[in-house]
Amino acid sequence: MNEIKVGLLGYGTIGTGVARLLVNDAKFLKQRVGASIKLAKVADIKPGKRPGVKLAKGVFTTAADKVLDDPDIPIIVELIGGKTLAKEFVKRALTNGKHVVTANKALLATHGEELFRLAYRKKVKLAFEASVGGAIPILRTLRESFVATRFSSIMAIINGTSNYILTEMTRRGADFNEVLAEAQKLGYAEADPTFDIDGTDAAHKLAILVMMAYGTSVKFSKIYREGITGITPLDMAFAKEFGYRIKLLAIARSAGQSVEAGVHPALIREDHVMGGVEGVLNAVYLKGEPNGEAMLVGHGAGMMPTAGAVVADVVAIARGILAGSGPHRAPMRAWPEESFGKLPMANIKDRRGAYYLRCKVLDKPGILSKISGILGAHRISIAQVMQKDRHQDGAVPIFLLTHEAVEKDLLAAVRKIDRLPMVKAKTAFLRIEG
Amino acid sequence: MNEIKVGLLGYGTIGTGVARLLVNDAKFLKQRVGASIKLAKVADIKPGKRPGVKLAKGVFTTAADKVLDDPDIPIIVELIGGKTLAKEFVKRALTNGKHVVTANKALLATHGEELFRLAYRKKVKLAFEASVGGAIPILRTLRESFVATRFSSIMAIINGTSNYILTEMTRRGADFNEVLAEAQKLGYAEADPTFDIDGTDAAHKLAILVMMAYGTSVKFSKIYREGITGITPLDMAFAKEFGYRIKLLAIARSAGQSVEAGVHPALIREDHVMGGVEGVLNAVYLKGEPNGEAMLVGHGAGMMPTAGAVVADVVAIARGILAGSGPHRAPMRAWPEESFGKLPMANIKDRRGAYYLRCKVLDKPGILSKISGILGAHRISIAQVMQKDRHQDGAVPIFLLTHEAVEKDLLAAVRKIDRLPMVKAKTAFLRIEG
Repeated sequence: MNEIKVGLLGYGTIGTGVARLLVNDAKFLKQRVGASIKLAKVADIKPGKRPGVKLAKGVFTTAADKVLDDPDIPIIVELIGGKTLAKEFVKRALTNGKHVVTANKALLATHGEELFRLAYRKKVKLAFEASVGGAIPILRTLRESFVATRFSSIMAIINGTSNYILTEMTRRGADFNEVLAEAQKLGYAEADPTFDIDGTDAAHKLAILVMMAYGTSVKFSKIYREGITGITPLDMAFAKEFGYRIKLLAIARSAGQSVEAGVHPALIREDHVMGGVEGVLNAVYLKGEPNGEAMLVGHGAGMMPTAGAVVADVVAIARGILAGSGPHRAPMRAWPEESFGKLPMANIKDRRGAYYLRCKVLDKPGILSKISGILGAHRISIAQVMQKDRHQDGAVPIFLLTHEAVEKDLLAAVRKIDRLPMVKAKTAFLRIEG
Repeated sequence: MNEIKVGLLGYGTIGTGVARLLVNDAKFLKQRVGASIKLAKVADIKPGKRPGVKLAKGVFTTAADKVLDDPDIPIIVELIGGKTLAKEFVKRALTNGKHVVTANKALLATHGEELFRLAYRKKVKLAFEASVGGAIPILRTLRESFVATRFSSIMAIINGTSNYILTEMTRRGADFNEVLAEAQKLGYAEADPTFDIDGTDAAHKLAILVMMAYGTSVKFSKIYREGITGITPLDMAFAKEFGYRIKLLAIARSAGQSVEAGVHPALIREDHVMGGVEGVLNAVYLKGEPNGEAMLVGHGAGMMPTAGAVVADVVAIARGILAGSGPHRAPMRAWPEESFGKLPMANIKDRRGAYYLRCKVLDKPGILSKISGILGAHRISIAQVMQKDRHQDGAVPIFLLTHEAVEKDLLAAVRKIDRLPMVKAKTAFLRIEG
């Protein structure tokens, strides 16, 4: 076979990047694959040229059918986004016996199981490296390089927008809304940044990571989610002073026979390898045996890095076609069909770990002993405490770091603390990781 | 096929780790692969039990022939090490039509081309992920995930022994020989550490990285090599004071139509992501398009991490066998047979970059103006200069950081500086990277 045809659905930013690589680097890719990979059809509802690439005549169409039903195209790339039309197209492509490459994390996080089963039945591949961490080769690593690994934990910075915002808040001591507005101006945050800052985007990706690392699918709605909107410059200043950074972390952790999975802001030591992952960079930190600890860092988003990951999936499928490889039993995922089970999810209230607390109290004698008394009664011991001098409405902030505690004990203690008359605002808390 | 047999040559430390995973985790691996991977034969000249694993009766043999000539074994793992017997065994296994997995970087760096050609001709795979960076999935990433990438540079910390030594020298201000002796006691350095500290081990790995990233083989002897034995506590103290770390770096860089490849100690900013890679950790930092920058960190050596990488290669080959995949055109390497060429190697004397200089001079007026005059005459401008107060034999050290310069200009200038009567020792220099 001298040529393998590819059909592209969705000619937006990432789609344009994919077209650039497939068209402009065709010779380079042919050298590496041993056959031409030809972008045969591109469909989008919006016609017109895209910057940096010129499609041959007859390649562009506004009719997705022409791509999905072309019997000469064995590989379909889905870059439409969303969960409705994209799902329909992916299902139809798989049903037609075509391999599919997608970057659609929301689709996979919510309908992954159904689509993987369909791909398995139709003996085709459903590849999705670009859906998590953009150019970071995390999924291939989980599926292949770390195939013999039993993971104790995975900790990921997989939302560039929130990492950029938190990095800038730390660096400049600036307020969340101020940095967000600026990030929107710079194009690092979307006009509607909800899914980035409330943890939804990171949770979609975490669902896929858990599926790959723990060999099971998780119910997306069961993943704990907490965003970064509540982080204040006070938290940032305290964290910095005590040698911590605040990051939005997506964490999966073995907890007995279940897995704990959640997205939330957390304090992490600045000398931890993940503490130095700044700005729009993404990173995944893995712990398990036999590998020990490992970390992958890179651009988690952006037109060309993401397009590169899509093209790598296309190449992998093309190489398989060239090698005449039959249906892989578990080629694009970490588990064989038979073990596609439900791993029980731990409740975050059972989390054991250290915590950071910020209370706002009237500056009167005895308050600290009251608070520490309540914590002690809930089996929580204090590792560090700091009272700041900055008066706000006659109140002062008190910061506490705890030793290891159970989250439901902490929640109960916080409820009691917040009922004290000298406490002037809801006590905020963050988990400490790493 | 319900069972795929594996033969192991070399039952030393890594071999024992591989046996542990294949025997003790057999059920776990079967779940992930969809068929049993059976350790059918293990050969070593030294009989006897190994810790943590029990081989079934009849599996162990002292006769390598029994493994190499067994027609029921499609996958051979070579963990003998060395270049003579290992080469003979690998060639024989490939000639017998068996896939081979090896961790032997010296063998591949010196005879890789011959072995890859043989594997290609015999339509089998030669896999070698564990040969570079242990548990870091760098080779699979170069071959698959970054298949569409044009690399501008690769910078790697790929020798754990030297990274441990340099980390401890920085941390404690200790002397090279003192830390080396301690590293030997702790098992982080071998009794004969020559290849680790003179850059040979890192250069073997760099040869493989260049081959994978630039799609060509390099003559090993053409790789520039400089070890860490000349690094003094003075260098460390200066680097630390100015916000740098000193690391043994293996660097490949595009230089016009050629590639620059060398291993040498270098100053790197402590806030660079590679500056924080401490102790026995390894890391590879990549720059190129479309990916942008990326970094992979992990355990570059050690029994179980390395064994995990070997087993991942075994699994990849087993999955290919199960999928009935024919000969991959370029399955275990980044280039097709046809383009197996020689990329011209740039000479390090043509390197453009910044430099660190340490001179030892008599503390007399005018010396600095003499030195800077010589540098200026060789088109080298000074970015920073520091004179330390610590008298040694009536002489003082002067430290200089240069702006970008060409290495041959620097060498010429240093020769002239060293001929000044007030200069009391050979001027030492280090490259600045990152």
